[in-house]
Amino acid sequence: MTRRTPTGAAVLQPSVTRAITEAVLDEWAEQGYGRLSMEAVAKRAGVGKSALYRRWPSKQEMAMSVISEFTVGSATVPDTGSLRGDLRALLDVLMEWMTHPRFRRILPDLVAEAARNPELADASIAMIGTPRRERARPMFERAIERGELPPDTDVELALDLVAAPIYWRLTVRGVEAGPGYLDALADTLLAALRARA
Amino acid sequence: MTRRTPTGAAVLQPSVTRAITEAVLDEWAEQGYGRLSMEAVAKRAGVGKSALYRRWPSKQEMAMSVISEFTVGSATVPDTGSLRGDLRALLDVLMEWMTHPRFRRILPDLVAEAARNPELADASIAMIGTPRRERARPMFERAIERGELPPDTDVELALDLVAAPIYWRLTVRGVEAGPGYLDALADTLLAALRARA
Repeated sequence: MTRRTPTGAAVLQPSVTRAITEAVLDEWAEQGYGRLSMEAVAKRAGVGKSALYRRWPSKQEMAMSVISEFTVGSATVPDTGSLRGDLRALLDVLMEWMTHPRFRRILPDLVAEAARNPELADASIAMIGTPRRERARPMFERAIERGELPPDTDVELALDLVAAPIYWRLTVRGVEAGPGYLDALADTLLAALRARA
Repeated sequence: MTRRTPTGAAVLQPSVTRAITEAVLDEWAEQGYGRLSMEAVAKRAGVGKSALYRRWPSKQEMAMSVISEFTVGSATVPDTGSLRGDLRALLDVLMEWMTHPRFRRILPDLVAEAARNPELADASIAMIGTPRRERARPMFERAIERGELPPDTDVELALDLVAAPIYWRLTVRGVEAGPGYLDALADTLLAALRARA
């Protein structure tokens, strides 16, 4: 006997959500946010537009929800027992993030769009930037507890310094960064942070 | 007596070039590269489309030529006599560059477009990235000559480390960076580069 869904209840099938999520990421990576449309996403996911509107009231909410889940959900922060180990491992995580086939197009597109759209900029900070930074922050707090970094370490600046060079090199400059580059970067960052003691 | 221009000669009036340049920067900042059109630029500059085609064969050549002139032409590299002084002054130059009302929208837009368009990516590297880096390189070479940095300093990494945090903070994260941030960044970079000795 099949139990019928009560009329009006919001039953969101996970398989449909997954199909829509994939379609949003594909469309965004290929078309850019400006040309991303609810119609194209629904078509690509093989669902009706109503399936999208049951989940999100607008394109912006859909896009930010999907990308936030994708980026914050995948943010594993290493805990290797040493700051050098954590830094080097985090650089690998960031590298993988920024070279992901779809995300390497989506992130710069979001940055460009946010520069023209203050509402989207605020949503990006709240849903991606801040949660990701909060995930990485304990890495530096542990290093301070272990005495590897001085207590007055500027953690805000440290967080910038880890992510920034990889984004700059890979995404802005469009230049490769091999393991040797990441090793040298980890050593340099370690020296920079320790020297503030 | 008005001298007539010989038929077929390419006489490019500087005032027209300036009007077109301004129109390209305005349109690009407002519309993004994807919606930038020769028609809209010509209309905004108050010239015919032929005035554009006399100068550049395509939208891409027009856009890259204008933005290269704008960014590389404005790249003054400080020579204060000390690495700390040069670093701090360069951070101000980069800050001004990345907060310029039009350019702060154009640069991330170009980065996003280049991630989808390999030809544009190559042109960006050749016409903006490489020339700007070559302008900044002597700053580190002078520091090596003065003995402020070790001879085996990784200048490629150093060049990344100076520009990256400002772009990351201002453009990607969309967060302010006051003079205190730039002071702390200069000190940290100096420590990082010296510690490699």
